[in-house]
Amino acid sequence: MQKRYLLAPGPTQIPPEVLLKMAEPMIHHRNPVFETVVEKVRTGLKFLFGTRNEVLIFASSGTGAMEGAVTNMLSPGDKAIVVRSGKFGERWAEICGAYGVVSINIDLPWGDKLDPSAIAEALEANPDAKAVYTQATETSTGTIFPTREIAQIVRNYPGTLMVVDGITGVGVLPLPMDEWGIDILIGGSQKALMLPPGLAFAGVSDKAWEMNKSSKIPKFYFNWAKERENLKKNQTNFTPAISLITGLRESLRILKEEGLENVYRRSDMLARATREGVVAIGLEIFSKNPSPAVTAICAPEGIDGQAIYKTLWKKYGVTGAGGQDFLKGRIFRLATLGYADKYDVITAVAAIEFTLNDLGYSFPLGAGVAAAVNCLKDL
Amino acid sequence: MQKRYLLAPGPTQIPPEVLLKMAEPMIHHRNPVFETVVEKVRTGLKFLFGTRNEVLIFASSGTGAMEGAVTNMLSPGDKAIVVRSGKFGERWAEICGAYGVVSINIDLPWGDKLDPSAIAEALEANPDAKAVYTQATETSTGTIFPTREIAQIVRNYPGTLMVVDGITGVGVLPLPMDEWGIDILIGGSQKALMLPPGLAFAGVSDKAWEMNKSSKIPKFYFNWAKERENLKKNQTNFTPAISLITGLRESLRILKEEGLENVYRRSDMLARATREGVVAIGLEIFSKNPSPAVTAICAPEGIDGQAIYKTLWKKYGVTGAGGQDFLKGRIFRLATLGYADKYDVITAVAAIEFTLNDLGYSFPLGAGVAAAVNCLKDL
Repeated sequence: MQKRYLLAPGPTQIPPEVLLKMAEPMIHHRNPVFETVVEKVRTGLKFLFGTRNEVLIFASSGTGAMEGAVTNMLSPGDKAIVVRSGKFGERWAEICGAYGVVSINIDLPWGDKLDPSAIAEALEANPDAKAVYTQATETSTGTIFPTREIAQIVRNYPGTLMVVDGITGVGVLPLPMDEWGIDILIGGSQKALMLPPGLAFAGVSDKAWEMNKSSKIPKFYFNWAKERENLKKNQTNFTPAISLITGLRESLRILKEEGLENVYRRSDMLARATREGVVAIGLEIFSKNPSPAVTAICAPEGIDGQAIYKTLWKKYGVTGAGGQDFLKGRIFRLATLGYADKYDVITAVAAIEFTLNDLGYSFPLGAGVAAAVNCLKDL
Repeated sequence: MQKRYLLAPGPTQIPPEVLLKMAEPMIHHRNPVFETVVEKVRTGLKFLFGTRNEVLIFASSGTGAMEGAVTNMLSPGDKAIVVRSGKFGERWAEICGAYGVVSINIDLPWGDKLDPSAIAEALEANPDAKAVYTQATETSTGTIFPTREIAQIVRNYPGTLMVVDGITGVGVLPLPMDEWGIDILIGGSQKALMLPPGLAFAGVSDKAWEMNKSSKIPKFYFNWAKERENLKKNQTNFTPAISLITGLRESLRILKEEGLENVYRRSDMLARATREGVVAIGLEIFSKNPSPAVTAICAPEGIDGQAIYKTLWKKYGVTGAGGQDFLKGRIFRLATLGYADKYDVITAVAAIEFTLNDLGYSFPLGAGVAAAVNCLKDL
């Protein structure tokens, strides 16, 4: 017997009531029953994204909405500023490149703390940049970026959009779009929304809709203006991922019931306990500004990070994630977003202890879980 | 108490064992357990599509794969021949238009029988057309197109691809790609594959992969070459719709167990019985070459087709579909694809009888189901 614990930075665990909801017999999307579901989901997403504007829903993974945030706003030859400090920052630059947008890359070493002044300088040098593309938290390094401060800077540029990939940010930490001045906020279903992958979201500000009018990059499946038109009638442009949207209604209900402040506090405390747990056994945190969504932990000297990830998964039942790209072997990651509670963190830290003990790392066995328990006593 | 019967041309009913499979706890996609699922699914899809080439899997609705069949093959300014004889033929032309492809439209009146010679003539007049875009069955009119014959014609043009939207065709009628010379065959999860919407498929021939090399339309999320590269390692380019792919493995198993010939015969017989049932009560079939996937039935003189569709749905528990576009009010549709059996057809015909009786149409009540039962006795 081996029980399985999914603590990866997406997909994440799904509450049983959401799984059951999605297992109900299929309903048709062009009828009032489904339209009622969409209506509830629209309200819930506006609440979660902190906006009075529509939050678009796509049948795609998060990257589809990231692509749309380029193709629906810019035109070939436009300039955009991209924060490139991890796998997903690189993705912004790749999308820009694919569509003929010139990306001005702010290349910050992976895991470093982003100083908002870097954005201010890039904008001063490129006041004609049409957008700043960034992450709320960079999943590949477990780093949080100062979204609020960046948005404040971008606000001064009437011709520049503040675009945030919040795929591992929405539902993990506050990102109130309207209050902070985020123009586009992207989300994905398989993270804090506690659903299977297959849905992407995009909150879109008035400023962004204005820019959309003059965008000349071709689009069809991800045509945001048509999507909004349909959404206002509780419909989607093409056949929606019905079962996932049905589950989303339930997930949003659960998040609302807990209260966003409590949800954010929970993720923050769980990530903190994860960090304190592993630090107590002598490990180091990779990020200089760690995220509440996912913790990137450095493999100790002489031990392969992939061996840790694989032993955790195979022998000890805990699915985390390894490092990506040049971080492969150097770090392993454990997430604390979505349907994760204090026992998940204690389980994860215990599994790390078992794993490192197996791999010949020397440390006081039990010190990690003790630190985690101490940290979690008030949650 | 009202039991619900979903007999729309997508989404369709989902077998309970598939629903339960998708309700299992989430698993991570970057690990061997999921890779085994993908490997099985690849084999199953090749079998279903009748090809030794890979069948690509996308997290999107079917339209996403239709878009990809344009953006991954052609370049702006290229010519393409489009059979436009319904809502989905129009979609091909719209996608071409969005990406700067010049569509030469064969405008056949909706529901008419397509003569393959129309394609031959269009190709003679436009031998430089890079593709012929067509449907296996046009869902909006319930019409079957002569895919095999068209493919035979297109085969003579080494620089022209035969692209078939088989979203309501795959798993309903034979479309063996390699044998018939279909270059791209598109499928969707929510039809004969008996899954929720959210997955699209594309079988791609060697000829199409050759053309892909010189395609200049930009793409990122739907980059087929990258998708193939990943698929060969049992992975996907971006986070896949894990729960749907897990369900797909089960659906493919069910289809294989029944045997494709039996699956095709079942759809054919069910559609035939639907037609005979409604003809027996004096109704007319809209299509001049009716499809085994979906039957478009003309509303009798003086009765609104939308009223029939709505009464069927609301009062009699049967979800069909209304007419689209200018056919709204003139027809209503009932599908016989996927997880549909003879009792579904008898139920549907009975519900039509109850509905028409309510709406004041005069006919021998019971004649429809009697005709259907007679037609279905050998299935």
